[in-house]
Amino acid sequence: MKPVTIYDTTLRDGTQGEGFQLSMLDKLRIAKRLDEFGVDYIEGGWPGSNPKDVEFFQEAKKLELKYAKLAAFGSTRRADLKVEDDPQVRLLIEAETPVVTIFGKSWELHVTEVLRTTAEENQAMIRDTVEYLVSKGREVVYDAEHFFDGYKDSPEHAIATLKAAAEGGAAVLVLCDTNGGTLPSEVMEISAAVKDAIPGTPFGIHTHNDCELGVANAIAAVRAGGVQVQGTINGYGERTGNCNLTSVIPILQLKMGIKVIDDLSALQTLSYFVDDVSNNPHFARAPFIGRTAFAHKGGMHVNAVQKIARSYEHIEPGLVGNTQQILVSELSGQSNILIKAEQLGMKLDKGSEEAKNVLGRVKELENEGYSFEAAGGSLELLIRKELGQHVKPFDLKEFHTSYRLYRDGHQPVCEATVKVHVGEESHYTVAEGNGVVNALDKALRKALLPFYPEIEDVSLSDYKVRIIDGHDATAAKTRVLVVSTDGEKSWGTIGVSENIIEASWIAIVDSIDLFLQRRRG
Amino acid sequence: MKPVTIYDTTLRDGTQGEGFQLSMLDKLRIAKRLDEFGVDYIEGGWPGSNPKDVEFFQEAKKLELKYAKLAAFGSTRRADLKVEDDPQVRLLIEAETPVVTIFGKSWELHVTEVLRTTAEENQAMIRDTVEYLVSKGREVVYDAEHFFDGYKDSPEHAIATLKAAAEGGAAVLVLCDTNGGTLPSEVMEISAAVKDAIPGTPFGIHTHNDCELGVANAIAAVRAGGVQVQGTINGYGERTGNCNLTSVIPILQLKMGIKVIDDLSALQTLSYFVDDVSNNPHFARAPFIGRTAFAHKGGMHVNAVQKIARSYEHIEPGLVGNTQQILVSELSGQSNILIKAEQLGMKLDKGSEEAKNVLGRVKELENEGYSFEAAGGSLELLIRKELGQHVKPFDLKEFHTSYRLYRDGHQPVCEATVKVHVGEESHYTVAEGNGVVNALDKALRKALLPFYPEIEDVSLSDYKVRIIDGHDATAAKTRVLVVSTDGEKSWGTIGVSENIIEASWIAIVDSIDLFLQRRRG
Repeated sequence: MKPVTIYDTTLRDGTQGEGFQLSMLDKLRIAKRLDEFGVDYIEGGWPGSNPKDVEFFQEAKKLELKYAKLAAFGSTRRADLKVEDDPQVRLLIEAETPVVTIFGKSWELHVTEVLRTTAEENQAMIRDTVEYLVSKGREVVYDAEHFFDGYKDSPEHAIATLKAAAEGGAAVLVLCDTNGGTLPSEVMEISAAVKDAIPGTPFGIHTHNDCELGVANAIAAVRAGGVQVQGTINGYGERTGNCNLTSVIPILQLKMGIKVIDDLSALQTLSYFVDDVSNNPHFARAPFIGRTAFAHKGGMHVNAVQKIARSYEHIEPGLVGNTQQILVSELSGQSNILIKAEQLGMKLDKGSEEAKNVLGRVKELENEGYSFEAAGGSLELLIRKELGQHVKPFDLKEFHTSYRLYRDGHQPVCEATVKVHVGEESHYTVAEGNGVVNALDKALRKALLPFYPEIEDVSLSDYKVRIIDGHDATAAKTRVLVVSTDGEKSWGTIGVSENIIEASWIAIVDSIDLFLQRRRG
Repeated sequence: MKPVTIYDTTLRDGTQGEGFQLSMLDKLRIAKRLDEFGVDYIEGGWPGSNPKDVEFFQEAKKLELKYAKLAAFGSTRRADLKVEDDPQVRLLIEAETPVVTIFGKSWELHVTEVLRTTAEENQAMIRDTVEYLVSKGREVVYDAEHFFDGYKDSPEHAIATLKAAAEGGAAVLVLCDTNGGTLPSEVMEISAAVKDAIPGTPFGIHTHNDCELGVANAIAAVRAGGVQVQGTINGYGERTGNCNLTSVIPILQLKMGIKVIDDLSALQTLSYFVDDVSNNPHFARAPFIGRTAFAHKGGMHVNAVQKIARSYEHIEPGLVGNTQQILVSELSGQSNILIKAEQLGMKLDKGSEEAKNVLGRVKELENEGYSFEAAGGSLELLIRKELGQHVKPFDLKEFHTSYRLYRDGHQPVCEATVKVHVGEESHYTVAEGNGVVNALDKALRKALLPFYPEIEDVSLSDYKVRIIDGHDATAAKTRVLVVSTDGEKSWGTIGVSENIIEASWIAIVDSIDLFLQRRRG
């Protein structure tokens, strides 16, 4: 048993944040990565709040998580229903997760003014719901919403709600600073009081960053004896976000000596992955994993750091997968790429000619604005090409797109033409679409289908665009990330160009190319 | 005498951050704003490190600060020079500021390995320099660099350096967590030890955010008796940045009851001002002042917040100049739009026909994927149209874009044609660009310029694309956000469509249209 477990709620509380939207496929991809990274719990969603989350738990059963336990989130039963008749609770059972997390009200204000019920009924709701879920074989995490505000208002009332959850059989009582207004000294004091009042059930902590104290409050609770830390990758979440796991994990492990994750060096890639999948920009100043977290600018600092790194670095950057930066140019992590090749099942030896060439090519492309964090498909293709495991499936001669918009009743007309050679044969096809990229995709498939009927199975499941440098406005570079699927697997490919059409084309071609290579074996 | 003073180092330590560059004029503008806001000290720069800072202090004399004291920053004398002969110290005197801040070495590692001198000489350097500056009538702030790392390595050595500064006559001894690796519990403990060891001189705190604990560490030191907090606006600074004053000030004042600023409601505008002057994007999730700091998305939260605001808000947002936002996703806030109209100087009465129509139109557009959070320009245009304050500047008949990519050496060819009516005249123009949107923008300007020569002043300064729903891949909706500027003001406009070209077109047309409406008055 670990002394402190990590409970990730990126997929649930994270998605309450403005600008953090995830499709179901995004959620599945992130869940898989979180499991590989080694968090203990993954909260996947709230089936009672939207149909997408119901569907997520159906699909998630196929994920075969290696390590993490999946948790479904929901609330206590309604005041006017028996727990077994509450449809929201039924959806929690139907999610078929080993863990169910339910939240209940700790603050009298919420009980009387928001729920409009009594303290006694509220405690019964908590006790009944926990008990029922435990009877169905679930490990139950109890999230005590507004715990600190509730405790400050009435310690007796707040403690009574926790006792109800403990009596119901909750595995852990999670103290939530839902509004994010509590100070570390208060968290420390109140956590200690909880430990005294309810010695038989361990407690955890769930904080928000409204005072820029989300991480500090979490570690204060751990110092007071807390055994579970809830948070999100990169601190995404409602308002100012949740406790940032990307900071709190390395603090626990590297500063407080509490082992929570086997290999912390995957932290930076995980952080980038979540940014990319959610189509959010990387926050360069982010602690530990930010692009500038170990970047030295001041002349005196640079000088000292070259003599002794720890003179201006609080940890060795490689411990979290980051690298020291002296100059503006970015250094591509060599070992990262070797590890990725291995994960893809391809042998790339350290120091070999092929490895050097792949690294050189990756650096070149990164300079042009590529980023392979969420585009493993393009990286795989690049490595295959270098290892001679690639047969070019077709040759592009030319493509053309045209878009005409009328203001007098006509529908817009959008078409694309593609000229390709497949083997000895030349093909010239045209297709219409509801956008130029869509038309281009269709025209290419039309040209290739007679030769490669298997591409019928491939479809684009996601298409994301980011402008890399906004300074030149429409002349800036465009990065297109495409996620494709054949119904079983999905893979990401990337294209970068000064214009979106070419960038999209590159990503689409890579996607189909990789699929064909894999089918060849 | 205030119990805790605020010492701003945005203009010095802030500019050590990557991407945070300020011209001398920028620095003067920010200094003036900081003074108006009411910080106690403004550290303007390090005259010994660059000529721009020397010049800044010359110009700053004309600022006539009402409240804040200006500080020049520098280091102790060199090991091989008498203090009065050290050119870097001379520049500090010549800056003619009431306050001089010097930093010295606390960590033996730095004394022996970086400075390459002895502990005794290091202490003499500190004592001499402080004494000399005091003799010239300066209030001297002593920054003890790497104090916590130094103390953990050797408490005796670290305390001896502070004693040297105190003996020299320093007004305050500032304990610096230069590398940002210290935990709040350590800050608390070590600060208390300093207070015991040197009771005669007060201490202050200077932290960095490398563990996301910059703010937590500062308040830990204040709890231990610290009287000065150093930091930067929005937390700018080297690596992960400095202690964020924008968070620590409201915590001190609103949570800990320590009055530090007269009118805190100017905090948000100050934060935006520093972002804008330094040309950095606003961080939406920033505590207290961020755009989403009081934004509610979850349906349950929105419902509760409308009953009782404090149910999900840790402070009243107006206290720091922020406002509650009910996010567009669930519920479009009617009052939000009325407030926005008022901010734009347009009269829109609650319950009026116009207000209802604007609200209806906004909701309709939001359903289609529009979001007006960052597109105030499009919202203004919409309100103007509803209020009859809009004259259509031109009529689009048709546009066409064409993009052809060759694989045999040719450059890609990209062109756009535009047919518009302006008044009675019809115009048909064509332009090339490095992308279809760029070509379209050029063709439209070419058509309009003869009629509206003022559009020469308008340029696109940012262009962002987001795919709203990734499920249908390239057939999904595209949201384009354009930021335009006329050199003085900037405004955001938005377009949504199933294809990126039309979405871009809508945003560009809105941008030019609004500019022309505003010029009409």
